[in-house]
Amino acid sequence: MEKIRVGVVGATSLTARLLLQFLCRHPHVETAVLTSESSLEKPVAGYYTFLRGIFHGKFVEYNQDYLIGETDLVFLCKQHGEFLPYTLRLFEAARKQKPGFKIIDLSADFRLKDPQQYMTWYKFDHSGTAVLAEAVYGLPELHRDEIKDGDLIANPGCYPTTAILGAAPFMHHRLVEPGGVIIDAYSGTSGAGMRPNERNMAITTMENILPYKIGTHQHTPEIEQELSLTAKERVTVMFVPHVAPFRFGMCANIYLKPHDVLESEKGTELLKAFYQGEPFVRVLDPGEYPEVRNVVGTNWCEIGYVYDPRTSMGVVMSALDNAIKGASGQAVQNMNILYGWDERTGLT
Amino acid sequence: MEKIRVGVVGATSLTARLLLQFLCRHPHVETAVLTSESSLEKPVAGYYTFLRGIFHGKFVEYNQDYLIGETDLVFLCKQHGEFLPYTLRLFEAARKQKPGFKIIDLSADFRLKDPQQYMTWYKFDHSGTAVLAEAVYGLPELHRDEIKDGDLIANPGCYPTTAILGAAPFMHHRLVEPGGVIIDAYSGTSGAGMRPNERNMAITTMENILPYKIGTHQHTPEIEQELSLTAKERVTVMFVPHVAPFRFGMCANIYLKPHDVLESEKGTELLKAFYQGEPFVRVLDPGEYPEVRNVVGTNWCEIGYVYDPRTSMGVVMSALDNAIKGASGQAVQNMNILYGWDERTGLT
Amino acid sequence: MEKIRVGVVGATSLTARLLLQFLCRHPHVETAVLTSESSLEKPVAGYYTFLRGIFHGKFVEYNQDYLIGETDLVFLCKQHGEFLPYTLRLFEAARKQKPGFKIIDLSADFRLKDPQQYMTWYKFDHSGTAVLAEAVYGLPELHRDEIKDGDLIANPGCYPTTAILGAAPFMHHRLVEPGGVIIDAYSGTSGAGMRPNERNMAITTMENILPYKIGTHQHTPEIEQELSLTAKERVTVMFVPHVAPFRFGMCANIYLKPHDVLESEKGTELLKAFYQGEPFVRVLDPGEYPEVRNVVGTNWCEIGYVYDPRTSMGVVMSALDNAIKGASGQAVQNMNILYGWDERTGLT
Amino acid sequence: MEKIRVGVVGATSLTARLLLQFLCRHPHVETAVLTSESSLEKPVAGYYTFLRGIFHGKFVEYNQDYLIGETDLVFLCKQHGEFLPYTLRLFEAARKQKPGFKIIDLSADFRLKDPQQYMTWYKFDHSGTAVLAEAVYGLPELHRDEIKDGDLIANPGCYPTTAILGAAPFMHHRLVEPGGVIIDAYSGTSGAGMRPNERNMAITTMENILPYKIGTHQHTPEIEQELSLTAKERVTVMFVPHVAPFRFGMCANIYLKPHDVLESEKGTELLKAFYQGEPFVRVLDPGEYPEVRNVVGTNWCEIGYVYDPRTSMGVVMSALDNAIKGASGQAVQNMNILYGWDERTGLT
Repeated sequence: MEKIRVGVVGATSLTARLLLQFLCRHPHVETAVLTSESSLEKPVAGYYTFLRGIFHGKFVEYNQDYLIGETDLVFLCKQHGEFLPYTLRLFEAARKQKPGFKIIDLSADFRLKDPQQYMTWYKFDHSGTAVLAEAVYGLPELHRDEIKDGDLIANPGCYPTTAILGAAPFMHHRLVEPGGVIIDAYSGTSGAGMRPNERNMAITTMENILPYKIGTHQHTPEIEQELSLTAKERVTVMFVPHVAPFRFGMCANIYLKPHDVLESEKGTELLKAFYQGEPFVRVLDPGEYPEVRNVVGTNWCEIGYVYDPRTSMGVVMSALDNAIKGASGQAVQNMNILYGWDERTGLT
Repeated sequence: MEKIRVGVVGATSLTARLLLQFLCRHPHVETAVLTSESSLEKPVAGYYTFLRGIFHGKFVEYNQDYLIGETDLVFLCKQHGEFLPYTLRLFEAARKQKPGFKIIDLSADFRLKDPQQYMTWYKFDHSGTAVLAEAVYGLPELHRDEIKDGDLIANPGCYPTTAILGAAPFMHHRLVEPGGVIIDAYSGTSGAGMRPNERNMAITTMENILPYKIGTHQHTPEIEQELSLTAKERVTVMFVPHVAPFRFGMCANIYLKPHDVLESEKGTELLKAFYQGEPFVRVLDPGEYPEVRNVVGTNWCEIGYVYDPRTSMGVVMSALDNAIKGASGQAVQNMNILYGWDERTGLT
Repeated sequence: MEKIRVGVVGATSLTARLLLQFLCRHPHVETAVLTSESSLEKPVAGYYTFLRGIFHGKFVEYNQDYLIGETDLVFLCKQHGEFLPYTLRLFEAARKQKPGFKIIDLSADFRLKDPQQYMTWYKFDHSGTAVLAEAVYGLPELHRDEIKDGDLIANPGCYPTTAILGAAPFMHHRLVEPGGVIIDAYSGTSGAGMRPNERNMAITTMENILPYKIGTHQHTPEIEQELSLTAKERVTVMFVPHVAPFRFGMCANIYLKPHDVLESEKGTELLKAFYQGEPFVRVLDPGEYPEVRNVVGTNWCEIGYVYDPRTSMGVVMSALDNAIKGASGQAVQNMNILYGWDERTGLT
Repeated sequence: MEKIRVGVVGATSLTARLLLQFLCRHPHVETAVLTSESSLEKPVAGYYTFLRGIFHGKFVEYNQDYLIGETDLVFLCKQHGEFLPYTLRLFEAARKQKPGFKIIDLSADFRLKDPQQYMTWYKFDHSGTAVLAEAVYGLPELHRDEIKDGDLIANPGCYPTTAILGAAPFMHHRLVEPGGVIIDAYSGTSGAGMRPNERNMAITTMENILPYKIGTHQHTPEIEQELSLTAKERVTVMFVPHVAPFRFGMCANIYLKPHDVLESEKGTELLKAFYQGEPFVRVLDPGEYPEVRNVVGTNWCEIGYVYDPRTSMGVVMSALDNAIKGASGQAVQNMNILYGWDERTGLT
């Protein structure tokens, strides 16, 4: 079988590292171009020991024409906002020069449908509203058919993937109140990236839980957008993120107010029906709870539901690996969908 | 100044260990009797290296008359339910033989006012309802005056201390809905005690968050009792506990639905006013969040409040050391109140 | 390609768990029989969520004839000493009934050539000296050819694998003093198994390093046996193990006294030459150090060497995953050798 | 009793934080001046919440005359090398203006007697050899009498304190070979300071052990100097440091080659005799091992000794809190000695 040629832009980021681990064992992919300004001209296998003997090239500078010429698909692993002008030019140029060229953007630059939200939550003016309208939100469980036909896939954020997968089935069936959904979420320190900073230091995070950006985190509108689309009504969430004392993994408790009694068994059935056939969502039986340790290192999302008859509240518990199903693994899953391959290819 | 003589029953438990660290540097206390069936006749300073050169005695068997004769106050560090019959006999005997004798029970046996709750949540029949009626719930911030006159102090649980201190001011002023308060809480593994078990193993808890007893934890009625008393109306909570990957410390997010807009600043003022003069509650300014690392090893509880105008919800964040303010430290604080000493004695 | 049928005895142990994860994705293997007395008759996929949809059977009782009948190879994951009589009977029976039947024993029961060492270090009398003489020590890097022809493979211990791989090249070339080799080693808590105990509790191991069995650990004779065989002279080691605050992984510093100056570069070359072509040993360049995080989750062993000209001492640093290259992964590697498959099959 | 007035230069460093926690509860000390360029003019109690209500001043700029005028003793918590010229000027000026003025320097600037070592290990030229000759190495257990009369105390490094306290008794009695002592040591991530960097990130240190500067760490000459002084012959060490996955604490295994058999019991007796009466060294009985968790948060150093008759090697195990006995606590102990107070004042 012929292989596609892929490029990774920003190939020395943490997300790119994990992405490359998946790509280098993917049977239908040849990693052709890796760009990195910080490691320019250095051998890739020196930076990534797992690529020794596998990848013999060097990191190269970002060059639009070279990328379009040498690859069929690029993964963008750059900071949101900063790279947006380049992505817009790449998209336009590729459309003319090489129809069928695909972009999977792991930043937030194309996740929000409403351009104004970028100013509100990300503090930059989105200069590509036309392209934004063409981008597909790459959550396979909700948008598989659109992804198939997309040219520009906006790979979802880690918190949004965790939260949306947990709440979407209940919103879709409009069984719960759409206002004031509480999302109490915990991320490993890898969520704060590879550049040393206050929030990813050991002394700050070990033997601690570190709340941050309570009610003001930029993933809020992404969660609300997708849950609102699913519910076909305006959903609002109070999003409360924390850094937890582990490196990888993420979990969230999503508190819902069902319109009527929605027992644990019934809610669980609903979840199982919604995710029937999904290759990477595992719905747990009542009495079982998702745990970070059961999903870390995998592309799985585990979901469980508990109803509390004393308060008539429900909680959906959702766990995944923030760096895999919440980033690199989902990007590979999206690539698999784009090319019609089994979604699990390269991911198990 | 003359010292009081104290006894510790169940002196080899984790709680007793920390309690003894406080007692051995308390200027008004002489530790006179330490009972332990498991370490009977062994030198205490062999078990507790920090007592070398300080305490020269041995662990002795529990003996009611001996305790009443040799001590003025006993701390009970035994499993709830099991020791209840002994506590009841001790209380009755002491009342006759030595008026003024004090008991501080660190178990749950005298925390709940309604005896029937013991069957529901602890699965045992409370055989001492008359004594139960005399017990005082030992949360100084809410019951200081009653504690002063009490003979039997029911030392609060760790989760209840965390949750009640966070929510009580809002309930007291009846500013929030009393039904369906969500308490999303995280405990260090020390909460699961010193006997090796599934929930306190490293392999289960490290690089993980472990939810358990969702909506069914036995601390639920304790939290509801105290918040209902404070609110003078029925408060119900959905209590969602987890084991977090650290040894000591505890934090909780308490989600409240204010009747009216209750901005972060206003809620913070209300907290500060409520805890004005309290020696062990620190209310943080808006924008600051309580963190486990800032309270571990101390008897402090840190509290912060955030209002989310987008959803009209409020969250109170509360953190303390589960083994200190949530157990041993609070017991010492209660002793200090009983004897009219500065509440901080031996605790700073 | 036809698959072999394998059995796992003691299939609910931690080692078996990881072994099964490898077996279930191994292309030439069908897992046919899983025995477990503790989970008898329970569905395997209920215990191992990763086997849902893959393995539909139940745990069965250990039955020698059934195992010989149904399988071609069994992995034994039982406590050393206890299971030895059964292994001896199984070996004898299989030899008669089914020539070519293979046993890979992950316990220590067949690792030591000298039966008397079992009494000294394991406190039991080895009742099967004839079989012991036939067993092959399953460290592929030293005994690949013998493994190929073996019927009973004694899968090495985790500490021995770490230490032997680090020191063997230097011993083989007799470049260092054979007496008084110091092995300062650190294991994750998984080394203490899945049954909760003092040494694998979070409260004991987190924020701590826990030394144990200094100079008396039962892995000492195993290390000495293999290094002596390699050196063709008597090697003695001082083995100093610790539990480190992580779950999986192991590392050791092996201090050697070279007969002559043996610079970092030269020692590294020697290591690289010795392990030339090895699929699972990675020798690092001078200035690079092995780290647990780089090998965890893999069957790789990383080795680095530093010479200290100030003291004329050398240190070999070795790191691997105690539960994989130190147990289950190495067992799979041995199976691959037994059947002539690529050693990496199922392991990457 | 009158209080002395102290200053802390570099008062926002991690070391200064812990130092201030001790100083603010020391009965004979008034903290008069805190300098910090980075937090200039900010209220100290805003930075250090534990000083709220205790210290009402602001951080000020470093000013030599002001310090000499306002304080009796200063603690220097600055980077080595950089601050050396200022310390030299401060020392000279204070000698003239205010005899009896004391300096405790927590940097390495005055620890090494041989100025040339600064170029070799720290890469700077020591410009104050005359002052260097007057400085006293502030390890109370070895230099108590000199400290009493010193004006400039060089507070020891954390690794050196751990290693020297473990090995000194054996060197003092010349019972072991002075060449090629191996020191295998583990530090918590706090050893890497409060500025975020590669070596103190959670993702680098958790679930890992991180070796660094093998044989080249700048604490090597400090250890050798003190052990050589004690032994009255040249001692050389191979020093092998690591970052361990915890925040605070440090432990080292020190491998010694006794000239003759030196059983665990006899070596332990020797240690106990050497440290008889020491307020902060605890020698463990044979069979007990020092553990980080038993010394963290205290000024104690725990030491144990094991002899391995099989290899005729001995290991001394030593553990302490790197930030307390290895820095701030030892500085307070030195101050107590300078003023003739009980050494434990403010430290228990």
